[in-house]
Amino acid sequence: MGEIAALAMNMTWKCGLAELPFGGAKGGVAVDPGTLSHNELERLTRRYTAEILPIIGPTKDIPAPDLGTNPQIMAWIMDTYSMAQGYTIPSVVTGKPVIIGGSLGREEATGFGVAYVTEDALRRFKRYSDTVRVVIQGFGNVGSYTALKLGDMGIKVVAVNDVYGGIYNPNGLPVEELLRTVREKGKVGDYKGGDKVTNEELLTLECDVLIPAALGRVITKDNAPGLRCGMVVEGANGPTTAEADDILRERNIPVIPDILANAGGLIVSYFEWVQGLQEYFWSREAVHDELKKRMKSTFVRVADYAEKENVPMRLAALMLGIRQVSRAKKLRGLYP
Amino acid sequence: MGEIAALAMNMTWKCGLAELPFGGAKGGVAVDPGTLSHNELERLTRRYTAEILPIIGPTKDIPAPDLGTNPQIMAWIMDTYSMAQGYTIPSVVTGKPVIIGGSLGREEATGFGVAYVTEDALRRFKRYSDTVRVVIQGFGNVGSYTALKLGDMGIKVVAVNDVYGGIYNPNGLPVEELLRTVREKGKVGDYKGGDKVTNEELLTLECDVLIPAALGRVITKDNAPGLRCGMVVEGANGPTTAEADDILRERNIPVIPDILANAGGLIVSYFEWVQGLQEYFWSREAVHDELKKRMKSTFVRVADYAEKENVPMRLAALMLGIRQVSRAKKLRGLYP
Amino acid sequence: MGEIAALAMNMTWKCGLAELPFGGAKGGVAVDPGTLSHNELERLTRRYTAEILPIIGPTKDIPAPDLGTNPQIMAWIMDTYSMAQGYTIPSVVTGKPVIIGGSLGREEATGFGVAYVTEDALRRFKRYSDTVRVVIQGFGNVGSYTALKLGDMGIKVVAVNDVYGGIYNPNGLPVEELLRTVREKGKVGDYKGGDKVTNEELLTLECDVLIPAALGRVITKDNAPGLRCGMVVEGANGPTTAEADDILRERNIPVIPDILANAGGLIVSYFEWVQGLQEYFWSREAVHDELKKRMKSTFVRVADYAEKENVPMRLAALMLGIRQVSRAKKLRGLYP
Amino acid sequence: MGEIAALAMNMTWKCGLAELPFGGAKGGVAVDPGTLSHNELERLTRRYTAEILPIIGPTKDIPAPDLGTNPQIMAWIMDTYSMAQGYTIPSVVTGKPVIIGGSLGREEATGFGVAYVTEDALRRFKRYSDTVRVVIQGFGNVGSYTALKLGDMGIKVVAVNDVYGGIYNPNGLPVEELLRTVREKGKVGDYKGGDKVTNEELLTLECDVLIPAALGRVITKDNAPGLRCGMVVEGANGPTTAEADDILRERNIPVIPDILANAGGLIVSYFEWVQGLQEYFWSREAVHDELKKRMKSTFVRVADYAEKENVPMRLAALMLGIRQVSRAKKLRGLYP
Amino acid sequence: MGEIAALAMNMTWKCGLAELPFGGAKGGVAVDPGTLSHNELERLTRRYTAEILPIIGPTKDIPAPDLGTNPQIMAWIMDTYSMAQGYTIPSVVTGKPVIIGGSLGREEATGFGVAYVTEDALRRFKRYSDTVRVVIQGFGNVGSYTALKLGDMGIKVVAVNDVYGGIYNPNGLPVEELLRTVREKGKVGDYKGGDKVTNEELLTLECDVLIPAALGRVITKDNAPGLRCGMVVEGANGPTTAEADDILRERNIPVIPDILANAGGLIVSYFEWVQGLQEYFWSREAVHDELKKRMKSTFVRVADYAEKENVPMRLAALMLGIRQVSRAKKLRGLYP
Amino acid sequence: MGEIAALAMNMTWKCGLAELPFGGAKGGVAVDPGTLSHNELERLTRRYTAEILPIIGPTKDIPAPDLGTNPQIMAWIMDTYSMAQGYTIPSVVTGKPVIIGGSLGREEATGFGVAYVTEDALRRFKRYSDTVRVVIQGFGNVGSYTALKLGDMGIKVVAVNDVYGGIYNPNGLPVEELLRTVREKGKVGDYKGGDKVTNEELLTLECDVLIPAALGRVITKDNAPGLRCGMVVEGANGPTTAEADDILRERNIPVIPDILANAGGLIVSYFEWVQGLQEYFWSREAVHDELKKRMKSTFVRVADYAEKENVPMRLAALMLGIRQVSRAKKLRGLYP
Repeated sequence: MGEIAALAMNMTWKCGLAELPFGGAKGGVAVDPGTLSHNELERLTRRYTAEILPIIGPTKDIPAPDLGTNPQIMAWIMDTYSMAQGYTIPSVVTGKPVIIGGSLGREEATGFGVAYVTEDALRRFKRYSDTVRVVIQGFGNVGSYTALKLGDMGIKVVAVNDVYGGIYNPNGLPVEELLRTVREKGKVGDYKGGDKVTNEELLTLECDVLIPAALGRVITKDNAPGLRCGMVVEGANGPTTAEADDILRERNIPVIPDILANAGGLIVSYFEWVQGLQEYFWSREAVHDELKKRMKSTFVRVADYAEKENVPMRLAALMLGIRQVSRAKKLRGLYP
Repeated sequence: MGEIAALAMNMTWKCGLAELPFGGAKGGVAVDPGTLSHNELERLTRRYTAEILPIIGPTKDIPAPDLGTNPQIMAWIMDTYSMAQGYTIPSVVTGKPVIIGGSLGREEATGFGVAYVTEDALRRFKRYSDTVRVVIQGFGNVGSYTALKLGDMGIKVVAVNDVYGGIYNPNGLPVEELLRTVREKGKVGDYKGGDKVTNEELLTLECDVLIPAALGRVITKDNAPGLRCGMVVEGANGPTTAEADDILRERNIPVIPDILANAGGLIVSYFEWVQGLQEYFWSREAVHDELKKRMKSTFVRVADYAEKENVPMRLAALMLGIRQVSRAKKLRGLYP
Repeated sequence: MGEIAALAMNMTWKCGLAELPFGGAKGGVAVDPGTLSHNELERLTRRYTAEILPIIGPTKDIPAPDLGTNPQIMAWIMDTYSMAQGYTIPSVVTGKPVIIGGSLGREEATGFGVAYVTEDALRRFKRYSDTVRVVIQGFGNVGSYTALKLGDMGIKVVAVNDVYGGIYNPNGLPVEELLRTVREKGKVGDYKGGDKVTNEELLTLECDVLIPAALGRVITKDNAPGLRCGMVVEGANGPTTAEADDILRERNIPVIPDILANAGGLIVSYFEWVQGLQEYFWSREAVHDELKKRMKSTFVRVADYAEKENVPMRLAALMLGIRQVSRAKKLRGLYP
Repeated sequence: MGEIAALAMNMTWKCGLAELPFGGAKGGVAVDPGTLSHNELERLTRRYTAEILPIIGPTKDIPAPDLGTNPQIMAWIMDTYSMAQGYTIPSVVTGKPVIIGGSLGREEATGFGVAYVTEDALRRFKRYSDTVRVVIQGFGNVGSYTALKLGDMGIKVVAVNDVYGGIYNPNGLPVEELLRTVREKGKVGDYKGGDKVTNEELLTLECDVLIPAALGRVITKDNAPGLRCGMVVEGANGPTTAEADDILRERNIPVIPDILANAGGLIVSYFEWVQGLQEYFWSREAVHDELKKRMKSTFVRVADYAEKENVPMRLAALMLGIRQVSRAKKLRGLYP
Repeated sequence: MGEIAALAMNMTWKCGLAELPFGGAKGGVAVDPGTLSHNELERLTRRYTAEILPIIGPTKDIPAPDLGTNPQIMAWIMDTYSMAQGYTIPSVVTGKPVIIGGSLGREEATGFGVAYVTEDALRRFKRYSDTVRVVIQGFGNVGSYTALKLGDMGIKVVAVNDVYGGIYNPNGLPVEELLRTVREKGKVGDYKGGDKVTNEELLTLECDVLIPAALGRVITKDNAPGLRCGMVVEGANGPTTAEADDILRERNIPVIPDILANAGGLIVSYFEWVQGLQEYFWSREAVHDELKKRMKSTFVRVADYAEKENVPMRLAALMLGIRQVSRAKKLRGLYP
Repeated sequence: MGEIAALAMNMTWKCGLAELPFGGAKGGVAVDPGTLSHNELERLTRRYTAEILPIIGPTKDIPAPDLGTNPQIMAWIMDTYSMAQGYTIPSVVTGKPVIIGGSLGREEATGFGVAYVTEDALRRFKRYSDTVRVVIQGFGNVGSYTALKLGDMGIKVVAVNDVYGGIYNPNGLPVEELLRTVREKGKVGDYKGGDKVTNEELLTLECDVLIPAALGRVITKDNAPGLRCGMVVEGANGPTTAEADDILRERNIPVIPDILANAGGLIVSYFEWVQGLQEYFWSREAVHDELKKRMKSTFVRVADYAEKENVPMRLAALMLGIRQVSRAKKLRGLYP
């Protein structure tokens, strides 16, 4: 219960920071979906949906997927809710398959968002040049799309890894080719165009930007002193421990916090909801453009606020998120 | 009942093909509206609307006009539904007069759509040139707007007709002038700038594109062998019989099927619904642009699929329509 | 009761003229809000909202602020309505603070709208030149934003005033600087870059455009004969008495009527509603652009109609507003 | 407006006194129904109903007939409301024809109620005997059913009248026979079994109970000093002027006030509502029994309270009605 | 479709005759439930319910069981509807199992109703005596409860049968004992306390009342001339063909028609609905009493009307049913 | 959370046992209401109500009072819910003050119910005689009404107590007089008509029935061996510990369990709900009669079942409660 409440609170500030008309709530079923058959999973999902029917809805509370849920599950929730109403209501959930009302561009949203923010941070902190080199930890959904978009922007990705190890090429990796290889063969290490590095080595490669894009708690008090990056952009959730955060601050290595850097998925969730409400669906380009605009304006607000208040970006982002919520609450009043 | 069910099924595939979030249903009253007074027609419409109130609605089922219904009738349905709810709900029907929430550009939608697809088909099948000549059968709502838009595109319309006969000018007819004449005098034959042709002759004129844009079942096994066109674009519903279809296929004359070619009206119906839901109404230009984009992307999907699967366009279009529906159905599941 | 009914009727024609899908209704509480504490005002507002709950709603009747109500009050109405439904419904009112769903650009909407229409009127009546001089009576919300936007357009504002008196500079006033001074010091007269004029003198200064942008009934049969302006653009509500109107017509001084000239606020109210319905919020630029487009097209419709019917602009605007409503009514029919 | 508000307030206290879960509201259309055709009356009723749809309903506000409305009109209101909901909702109005959900026993309710209270008052004030004589002014719906029920109870009705005059028989009139005559021939005066009296004489006949059962303001300061009755039971609404009331009090003639004495119709309206909610309809006997029980218990409460507080019955009844409402209001609180 | 419509119409008149606030509609799925597994039947029922959700409801249309449906199916319909609303709504169907809101006394309702009417008919037609003998064709739900109740009334049942044959005892059969035997052993013929008769013989036994309580069309033009009963009471639906009906009328054998005689089940369906609406459930005795009262009052109305209009009971019953509906319709008007 | 869930489960079986169409749920706010002002309590209640609005309702979930809540709080819940709907909905809660829809007879319901069951138990277990003596522990709401009703039945109450001590009179206490004294003076010990006993002594007085009617866990393994009663009737919730229960069973002292004995309050809660749904309110006598009937029939079912299954009453009652719920669940099925 406590963890769920904490996640809900975090989501509230994250939505506030991104200025989305969403609150933040979390719920779920305590089950390992991997142990269920397709049929059991469907029935469990439909039952759970039936139980929460009175408190969800396109203008009430809109479930979005998280760990352990996938587009198929969101489709069942949507279908169960819709059948109870008697007609199709796509906007009751986000994370749906595109064919039944999901948003184009959702898959790549978080990664692209990380890339947009990285570009802005490089410019803001005057570290942008032709020779910028980026190291990305993780090459899953977030890491790979971050790499692809950075490539589009002409920013070199020099190292990536997966659970089995990483590869490094100081002249930059050909991201599309690498991705193709990984999709075909399964591992980053199957790509032959670079030197192998261990996952520990990767974190401490010399680079302009280090983007942890896989798990939480990977930059710790143990490795933080040895990082050789110009800045950290948190693509994953909570990759930096509190102690590591202190060390990086002392070392003057800026950290672009997760609440800002990886908000792309949340923002496109919001777009999906809006498209469903309007029953009008956007092109992939429109989604990318709108996402970019929002990521960048949020980055500027956070960076300006951090500068003005002389606090780290992480604190600035949190303060802005909370301020947005509290101002709205104050205007509306507590009623009843 | 059977015919209604068939029409409903066709509409389902047509919406699927155009990727609109609409299903397909049909209903009506067995009456000849021509025998009713204005007052009787209003009362009949309101009564019918009252009977179907529980199953229609802006997010349920949205009646659109068909043969025998006009904007005035749609206005009554909208008003009856709205009065029962207590406030105005424009998006409960489409085909309304513009002043109460209809869409600009709906009148010309089918014709323009036929023209957009004709242009694409000419390019796709490498028959586009300065000397392209088009013959249009019928000069009603569909035929005249097709002709106008083709004219805008610099494509020559060399012959058109109406129930009384046709005119032919191998150098191209001045469509706007012709349309003005028809509106003033009533018949295509009243225009003097071309040679008279019978309706039978018109179908077999030598041309690059023949566009039947009036009635169904006009290209038959009798005249199909004699057509001298490079391709057929079906502006009307079902203008080609099954036997004629086979003959044209053997003769290697591509047929752009009605489910694709004349979807413009349906698509703008969808736009009208969206505008009503958003309570935000688009300019005529915005409607035309969006219609063009969708007609063209649908054409490409059908043509690509036909090529890939090596089937005629008609079959390809049907397969795509059904596939869209069945994929969505599969994802949602059968529940309860 | 009579006054409220009259205001409601006027609002109906104004919405009709601007082609907004709004009717016109008015309601309120007979109280001087200035005599209430913040807490009393909140409770009064919530009680009033509770009483009208069954007849308001995002698709029913949408309260907008008028004299005596402010964004805070609209926030309470929205919150009270939303809490009764169980979830946030921004589109139930307009005039909300931006942070809870208000529209960017609403503050400046009326003033900018007046400026857009002024520019059009100058061009239409062939009085546009580099030396155009505008006099604005009033420097509150409407007057100041009118002045700012005219300045942007390169049109000289030569005199403005407030309740304490005015200033005049035949070479044009630097509007931004003047506004800064007024915001800091409190009075127009505190600005030193012009000659002082009395409020009576200001009205009769020689100019191309006189824009009364403060109170009603300021151009009267007494001062109308002495006006030395090329035209009058009514930024305020009802600034010209009926007798004065007659005099100006005889003097061939065109009057751009309030129902047209100051509709900017109403139009952005409409935008705010649409944004709330879509749960998608526009940039300030988008609001300005869309406002400009609508103000200008409305101006053209009124001016064309006045010319065609050979009636004054005021009458033309009223006729168009009523016509819009009556046409829609006729199409929908009287039911039950 | 003022009169309507006053009627609404009176109804509120009357419901409070009878302990019915009804509030009191009044509304209407300013029209003389006698000037309308049947068709016009239907359309007016349906339109009016449509206008008040959002504020009426079986659990909201339940229209009941008053002067100028009849069962047919209530049927139309019910039908209009029901058709807007899509199914029959009898409990949305009272006063309906029995066949569509009206209550048996409603016609005679007020008259029977007057009779029940008369019996109780006679016993309470020790004036009950075999020789009790009652004079009834008016022989319409209220007067005739009062007379019939008094007859059932063995109480003699010695005089009744209508607008044309009255008849008097000190030995008692045979009420059923008299009623039959009136129904056949039209006037009380057509009955031959008694002496003719003028309407003025009737009021001052010597009797135990005088029951004004026709119009308001008939017992005035002019005739009150001359009344020769033991008590007055107000069957009509407001038959006694304020001055007359004072005179009677000084003369120690108890007045059973209208708010108590003629509540029978209201109480059966309540029964009709309950029957509609339950969709279960009572026999005529059940209605009579329940009515009698409630009339009698209300009489006892008023009489006890008047005695305890030493106030006239009229004041006691009003105080009890208000107290009921204010206690409920206090418990519920003012919210919002 | 035609048959369904005819059944719906019949139900309408039957409800009208019994003065129930029900209309009459019929619907179903074309399937033989016997070919479905329990699980398939549940899924079919839930799907069908989902499809008709918008048109059923406790105040809209209330499904009741008919041939091929049983309490379990009604429970599923109720559950499916309830789950879609989010809470239990027993009154949406009738024929439910008692434990989830069904009515006590429903099982025996039709049979008891037949018996009540039989008693009344005997008295009315002066054929009631100590020696009355009744023959019942069929010993299923209707026949057995008819027999039991007749036994309670002291009326002798002298013969009953089932599909395998019948038994006859001119001194009367001990119904409870017989029923016990049938329940244990399965056939009427297993009871040894009477003479065996064929099903053909049974119909023509000499008796005071013949009650066909099994199938339709069993009294035909072939056997009608040979009946030796004093009257026929139709416990089954449509047991008498039109020709047989004519013959019996000529022979002066009164027929108590099915629409009247077997209405007991329908009436208790109505009670079940009322109990669900009230969420208050009656004792078995209360159900029996109320059923008896209604059967008897309906019988009287039909018999009186038949006498007054000099028509057979069957026609009288139909006329009364239609009159009830048409009067209500006339009062409500046709709207819209 | 665990405790709340357990209470909810218990309530479910209790409702099942009493055959009420209620489920069982529990909720609340973790606060000591004694520390809140009247105004704070109102605001807390209204806020809590607002939070649970979507899941309560007259046909959904009906809050009833428990420890720490009183009629005033229930009035606020009802008012808050009602104001959100726009009209008064009494049946959304039970435990309301009578004047706003509470049930007459609720106050005395639990105590009377205990007395009814005591009488039945005495008869059933053949211990009923003129000399029956009852000891009641506790003289609050439950104990005093139990004593009063036992007195009405002619059963002697020989001892009662409160927190300060008890009194004992082997010839029986005059309950009404005793109650008057306690209400006036405050303590049971202030009554002079008996011998003082300590609270420990009271439990072990020799008697036919011991009724613990105050706190839980008062009959323990320590005092159970010393009880000198013929049976125990649990008026309080959980007065007997599990060990004590075993001891009493071994000693052959029947225990009428709380789930049965003190269900009177719950049953009248149900009556209150029904009255609110019907908007028709019962007399106090009707409530008492109906309560008695239900208490007695439940007692019989439990006692018969205990006998048949040869289990203690407590287990029998629980089994019946669960069986009722599980049978209904099985019939309805698990869906979705």
